[in-house]
Amino acid sequence: MKHLLISLFLLMSFGVSAQKSTVSSFHVVPLGVKGGIDESNLSAYLVAPSGTNDYICLDAGTIYAGLEKAIANKVFRGSVSEIQKQYIKGYFISHAHLDHVSGLIITSPDDTAKTVYAMPRCMKMLQEYYFNGEAWANFGDEGKGFLLKKYHFKTLAPREKMGIDNTAMQVTAFPLSHVNPFESTAFLVESNGSYILYLGDTGPDEVEKSNQLNLLWQAIAPLIKTNSLKGIFIEVSFPNDQADSKLFGHLTPRWLMKEMNVLAGLTGRGSLKKCPIIITHVKPPATRIAQLKKELIIGNELGLHFIFPTQAKAFQL
Amino acid sequence: MKHLLISLFLLMSFGVSAQKSTVSSFHVVPLGVKGGIDESNLSAYLVAPSGTNDYICLDAGTIYAGLEKAIANKVFRGSVSEIQKQYIKGYFISHAHLDHVSGLIITSPDDTAKTVYAMPRCMKMLQEYYFNGEAWANFGDEGKGFLLKKYHFKTLAPREKMGIDNTAMQVTAFPLSHVNPFESTAFLVESNGSYILYLGDTGPDEVEKSNQLNLLWQAIAPLIKTNSLKGIFIEVSFPNDQADSKLFGHLTPRWLMKEMNVLAGLTGRGSLKKCPIIITHVKPPATRIAQLKKELIIGNELGLHFIFPTQAKAFQL
Repeated sequence: MKHLLISLFLLMSFGVSAQKSTVSSFHVVPLGVKGGIDESNLSAYLVAPSGTNDYICLDAGTIYAGLEKAIANKVFRGSVSEIQKQYIKGYFISHAHLDHVSGLIITSPDDTAKTVYAMPRCMKMLQEYYFNGEAWANFGDEGKGFLLKKYHFKTLAPREKMGIDNTAMQVTAFPLSHVNPFESTAFLVESNGSYILYLGDTGPDEVEKSNQLNLLWQAIAPLIKTNSLKGIFIEVSFPNDQADSKLFGHLTPRWLMKEMNVLAGLTGRGSLKKCPIIITHVKPPATRIAQLKKELIIGNELGLHFIFPTQAKAFQL
Repeated sequence: MKHLLISLFLLMSFGVSAQKSTVSSFHVVPLGVKGGIDESNLSAYLVAPSGTNDYICLDAGTIYAGLEKAIANKVFRGSVSEIQKQYIKGYFISHAHLDHVSGLIITSPDDTAKTVYAMPRCMKMLQEYYFNGEAWANFGDEGKGFLLKKYHFKTLAPREKMGIDNTAMQVTAFPLSHVNPFESTAFLVESNGSYILYLGDTGPDEVEKSNQLNLLWQAIAPLIKTNSLKGIFIEVSFPNDQADSKLFGHLTPRWLMKEMNVLAGLTGRGSLKKCPIIITHVKPPATRIAQLKKELIIGNELGLHFIFPTQAKAFQL
C-alpha cells in the first residue's frame, strides 16, 4: 500500500512534465507572417510550452490584428485585450525595423507589465527612436523621457542563456547579419529540454561577408542531432530572381538551401529532415510569395520539412 | 448652327467644373478610423475632389489594410499596390505619433514617388526617428542616411496656403496643441472654392492652456458662414468619464461640444449645423467607443450633423 501511494505521488508529481516531453513541445500561434507592406499581418509568433498559456512573442510586427483573427479562428477565447495582457509574458525583438516592432508600440498603451528582450543595439534603437517620450510614450524603465515602467527592458548578452520571466523557458540570443554591419538576432528558446530557433531578418553569410549564420549552425547542430530542436523559424523574403545586390539582408529559396546545406553538413541530412523549417517574412505581393513557395518546394533537394505558417492558425512543434 | 456649336463647345469645356461646384465637393475614403491599439485600422483619410482620383491621405496610420478592405468593398478597382501608387498623390501628417504614420512607413518600399507634407517639428521627427536610414530606409530627400528620394519632404509653414502637388487642391496648415508644448496640425484643404478641415490629435484649449483651437475657429468661421466648408474632421478619443488629467491631449464629447460652442459663437448655429462634423480617432475598446458615440448624440445641444466614419466605406462631402 505504501509503495502504491508513493507511486501515485510520483505519477501525480511528474505527470505533467512526462507528458510535455513525449507529446509535443511547443504551441505556436503566428500573429503575423509577412515581411512588410501589410500592417495587419507583420512578423510576430507566439510560442508557449505545450499545454500552457505562457506565451512569448517572437518579434512584434502585428499584435492586435493577429489576436483578433486568432480569436475569430477559436485559437483563443476572450478579448484581444485579455489575451494580450494575460497570455503574452514577454516580447523578443530581433531588430528594430518597424515591421518587427510596430505592433508592440501601437498596443503598448493597453498592455500590462512585462519584459521586452533585445540585444544591445536593438534595445538602444527601441529607446532612441520609438519609446523615447516623443515619438511614443516611454513605457519602459530605461531611456529618454518620463519612464512609465510598464515594460522592463532586458538587454540580452550574445550566447548567454537566461530565464524568461513568468515562464519555465530559457533563451539564448545569437547575433545575425542584416545588411552588414547592421545586426539582427536569432533566439534559441528552451522548454524542458526541447528547443525552437527563431531567426530575425538575415542575409546569407556569403552576401553579408559574415560568419554569423555559420556560427549559429555550429551552435545548434548538436540539438538537431539529438532531435531536441523542434523547429527553425527562418526568413525567405524574395524569390530566386532577386539579385544578390538587391537582397537588403534577406534570403531567397536558393540562399536558404545553401545555408541548409551548410547545416546538413554539420548534422547529417537524416537529422535535419526531422526538424521542421518554418518559413517566415515572405514579402508581398502575393504573386511573389507564391513564386518563392514554389521555388522552395522544387528546390528542396535535402527533403526538408517546410511549414508555411498562416496568420492566426496555430500549430504544434 | 454656329451658335449651337459654340454652345456645345462651352458645355463640353466647362461641364466638369460646373458639375463639381453643384454636385458635391469631396470624396472621402477612410482607410483607418481608430485612435490606437488596432494596427489594421489607424487614422488615415483619403480625400479627393469629387469625380477625380487625385487623393491626398490625411494622416497615414493604416494604408495597406485599409485599401485592401476598400477594394473588397468595391470602393476601388485594382490591387492595393496600384491604388496606392496611382491614386494617392501625397501624405499629410498631423504629428509623428506612430498611430498616424505607421502605414506610410510600412508601405513605403512599395510606393511611388510623391510628396510628404508636415509642419516643421513633425517633419523633423519623421526624419530623426523613422526615415533615418537605420530604423527605416530614408525614402525621403532630406535628413540622415542614404537619401532614396522617393518622397519629397515638404515642410509647411503655418497659415500659408500652398498648392498640393499633382492635384488641383491647396492646403493651409494650422498648429494644434497636443499635450502642450507638443504640437499637432490641422489641414485646411481647398478644392475649387470648397474646403474641408482635418484636425490631427488635439486637446481642448482650456486643458492645454492654449489658444490654438480658438485661433483655428476664427480662421475658418468665415468659410462656415458662406457654406464653403464641407466638413470638419475632428477627434473624440475618450468618453466623458475620462478625467481631464488623463486626456493626454485629446477630446471627449463634452470637450468637443464646448469647442463647438465657441465655433458656433463665431458662425451662428444655423451655419454650423450645415457643416458635417466627422468624428475621428475613437479609442478602443469597442465598449468605450459605443459609449462616446452615445454621449455625442445625447449631448448634441447644437444639433450638429455628426458623421461616424467606417473603415473603407466612402462618403461625399
